[in-house]
Amino acid sequence: MTQNKKTALNSTRNSDYTQWYLDVISAADLAEHSSTRGAMILKPWGYALWERCQKILDEAFKKTGHQNVYFPLLIPLKMFAKEAQHIDGFAKECAVVTHHRLSKNADGQLVPDGELEEPYVIRPTSEMIIGEAFSRWVDSYRDLPILINQWANVMRWEMRTRLFLRTSEILWQEGHTAHATAKEAREETLLMLSVYENFIEKTLNIPVITGMKPMIERFPGAEETYTLEVMTQNQKALQAGTSHFMGQNFAKACDIQFTSAAGQKEFAWTTSWGMTTRLIGALIMVHADDCGLVLPAPLAPYHVVILPILKNRDSDAIVLKKAQEIQEEIESLFFEKEPIRVHIDRRDIRGGDKNWQWIKKGVPLRIEIGEKEIEMGTCSLSIRYKDRDPLTRMSYSLSDFYANIQSILADQTRHMWDMAANYRQKALYDVQSYDELKKAIQQQNDSEEKAPGFFSCFLADTPELEAHLKALNVTARCLPMNALAEKGVCIITGQPDSPKMILAKAY
Amino acid sequence: MTQNKKTALNSTRNSDYTQWYLDVISAADLAEHSSTRGAMILKPWGYALWERCQKILDEAFKKTGHQNVYFPLLIPLKMFAKEAQHIDGFAKECAVVTHHRLSKNADGQLVPDGELEEPYVIRPTSEMIIGEAFSRWVDSYRDLPILINQWANVMRWEMRTRLFLRTSEILWQEGHTAHATAKEAREETLLMLSVYENFIEKTLNIPVITGMKPMIERFPGAEETYTLEVMTQNQKALQAGTSHFMGQNFAKACDIQFTSAAGQKEFAWTTSWGMTTRLIGALIMVHADDCGLVLPAPLAPYHVVILPILKNRDSDAIVLKKAQEIQEEIESLFFEKEPIRVHIDRRDIRGGDKNWQWIKKGVPLRIEIGEKEIEMGTCSLSIRYKDRDPLTRMSYSLSDFYANIQSILADQTRHMWDMAANYRQKALYDVQSYDELKKAIQQQNDSEEKAPGFFSCFLADTPELEAHLKALNVTARCLPMNALAEKGVCIITGQPDSPKMILAKAY
Repeated sequence: MTQNKKTALNSTRNSDYTQWYLDVISAADLAEHSSTRGAMILKPWGYALWERCQKILDEAFKKTGHQNVYFPLLIPLKMFAKEAQHIDGFAKECAVVTHHRLSKNADGQLVPDGELEEPYVIRPTSEMIIGEAFSRWVDSYRDLPILINQWANVMRWEMRTRLFLRTSEILWQEGHTAHATAKEAREETLLMLSVYENFIEKTLNIPVITGMKPMIERFPGAEETYTLEVMTQNQKALQAGTSHFMGQNFAKACDIQFTSAAGQKEFAWTTSWGMTTRLIGALIMVHADDCGLVLPAPLAPYHVVILPILKNRDSDAIVLKKAQEIQEEIESLFFEKEPIRVHIDRRDIRGGDKNWQWIKKGVPLRIEIGEKEIEMGTCSLSIRYKDRDPLTRMSYSLSDFYANIQSILADQTRHMWDMAANYRQKALYDVQSYDELKKAIQQQNDSEEKAPGFFSCFLADTPELEAHLKALNVTARCLPMNALAEKGVCIITGQPDSPKMILAKAY
Repeated sequence: MTQNKKTALNSTRNSDYTQWYLDVISAADLAEHSSTRGAMILKPWGYALWERCQKILDEAFKKTGHQNVYFPLLIPLKMFAKEAQHIDGFAKECAVVTHHRLSKNADGQLVPDGELEEPYVIRPTSEMIIGEAFSRWVDSYRDLPILINQWANVMRWEMRTRLFLRTSEILWQEGHTAHATAKEAREETLLMLSVYENFIEKTLNIPVITGMKPMIERFPGAEETYTLEVMTQNQKALQAGTSHFMGQNFAKACDIQFTSAAGQKEFAWTTSWGMTTRLIGALIMVHADDCGLVLPAPLAPYHVVILPILKNRDSDAIVLKKAQEIQEEIESLFFEKEPIRVHIDRRDIRGGDKNWQWIKKGVPLRIEIGEKEIEMGTCSLSIRYKDRDPLTRMSYSLSDFYANIQSILADQTRHMWDMAANYRQKALYDVQSYDELKKAIQQQNDSEEKAPGFFSCFLADTPELEAHLKALNVTARCLPMNALAEKGVCIITGQPDSPKMILAKAY
């Protein structure tokens, strides 16, 4: 890959993957650390990516019959403590509010004051407080299903944090639904899994494996947890979203009962499902290269950035006017049913700096336009292809460009997909025995930066699995949906009728 | 007003305004109290109103050059304590996080554990944490202005709360900007005031008075606070938004310095501005009637609800098909540059119940459609005019309805505006002396439910004003923008060159 050493990132995926990830974030100006432990500041470009995720997911949720609501941030401790597994899962990482004012002490220092009779937990997730409302809202089977979602912040006091992937405060959406039957609730769980799958594949342009979590990896309180697993460029697994079938566990803990059509009192069946700003971490881990972020067109806040070549002369006005004309022309076109999004960078800074800033931010197309281009009726187009020289320009007649822009974007999107599918395919291994698994992991494990990949094998879904896998230094990612029907002999315990599982190192 | 007593609200504005307000909220199913002190649950219809506010404000912010970001919920206590006035203003109502996990004590009770070395405050507003970032982001005058906004939740531990008007947790947006000159920062403050004014008048359809807060009512740490004051139907003032010019106070507290074009180190000039879900309280207080909410068309989540008359017969399919046709036809039309929003209520419940539910939710237009209407090519239209019988129907040929829908919505919007402007005009008093003021307040103050109105007079803008007004049981709302140039003799202290102020009882 040819590149200007001064303007690419300081690190590469091969030299230092961990540092490279942070360099992509900082070069694209997506986010930074804050003074609040483990919480990040989402900067404009990072937040713009999240807004795109929100918009597209929100439309998909509404199309499938869900309505948005908002529940309180703080959960009374007693309410939070009602579901035993739920507590076990979250108690270790809860931020707790114990006071409701600040006062000056004898030394003039500001200290917490006004101790609360009952402390509050900052929601790590909202099952309990939403469950309490469901118990009031549901009376008869006619009140079901309830299908709601909220866009909110949650807090999990993690010890080791990493921008986007694991933060103490998390922006996310959480869907919560209640149903009259187990069948309906399970269908909802799988419906939302497919909504997520569609979003990851179509919008983030990332091939994903959907599956059921083995019991040792389930959400605290869930009967079944479904997951979406992405393979990063260093061959680790990244969980990009989850959808949970709760059975009647939360209905019992929160007393969500209804009178059935037959006149019986029954507990409802509930689900919940969530996605977070972690999606942006997945995007980087899959699509970025050694020059920075590369954005798939369906997600990009701007498809096209126009860079007028300014020379601080009278001609600048003509160039800017032409840029505006081009913008209006392109904005009247559509890509995947949305108007094409265009931005003109009018800033009076060096053209090369501008250009590199947008390369690192990953916009799909850059157009340079100056006096020469105007004379010839052309523009100078650069397409941000992953792992290709980002400075490669081609001269394009404007009319041809307008006619071809959709196919250029579609081609670029396909190229990104192929690269992601390709590296994943190469690191997906089928293994038949424990020895083979152990050897394969070790064989592939010779680089610090690169994980061994994904291993598919038959394994018994039992609590003991955790200890076995710990020895191998991998985790059980999921029972892939496309192999749920396959059964075989567990390669560790010999137990027959064991499901197929995918193992990997994970973020 | 003719109405079905069984289906209107239980209380009226005249009989019990406070209860009426709560009844409107509950009948429209907007929100409810939660188990968390002073925090509400925003239900789907209430949240849909907030989403409309968000969408329209967000577009206006972006059009004026602002970008969205997200900052942490928790502010380290030491950082929060840097600006003295700011602390004085917020210390009494801060929720404080002191622990980061829960553990079981000897009695098996779950209790806060893992005490933090430094407590965190849940943001009551984000000046300090954003100011700290600005100090890192700003180096040269070229880095200015910074124009950002965030959609977030904040927490103010208020002792007396009321749904939408005063809650412990608040959903809002907060804009924060930094500039190289006082002039620019003041222009920004006023620009955002005008963006807010435009939103309240054009989208909420509410006449509003913009003005500068007298010094005793300023935001803690601001040099100038601008406000938007709405008069409710019971003649109280409701502050609907604020825009603050901070001078260099926060720049000094947070060390936001830049090198000017002349090479000098200077402190930046900052602003902040915010609006909250309180807007929905204003909407109710101005536009609702004794049958429930009345929504202005520009804000309404749906302009039109179609109520198919179902009879559990084969004809139902034909009626539903026709309803869908009408929906598609109307959705292809525009009202104020947005496609008209239509919902079909397909629920199989009693027609009268359905009808009343939508009356109470305040949708501008309801269309009933059944076999008879299909035969005649008509629909049965009800327009939700405030204080007119909501059950009044008129038969409309469908083609006429399509041709006239924009003018029907515009007419209804104008009607609501006129009613609001009218009652406000009647309760706006100009007073010339202290005696006149005192008498006028007492005269108008004979009802418990109705406040005396707005009083305009010359008053000296001093710290002593607070005590004087306390005796009168009113507060100083603002120095109205349209009278900022007028000066006169203070009617209390006799001080010359005093500005015109508006006094009122307030929420």
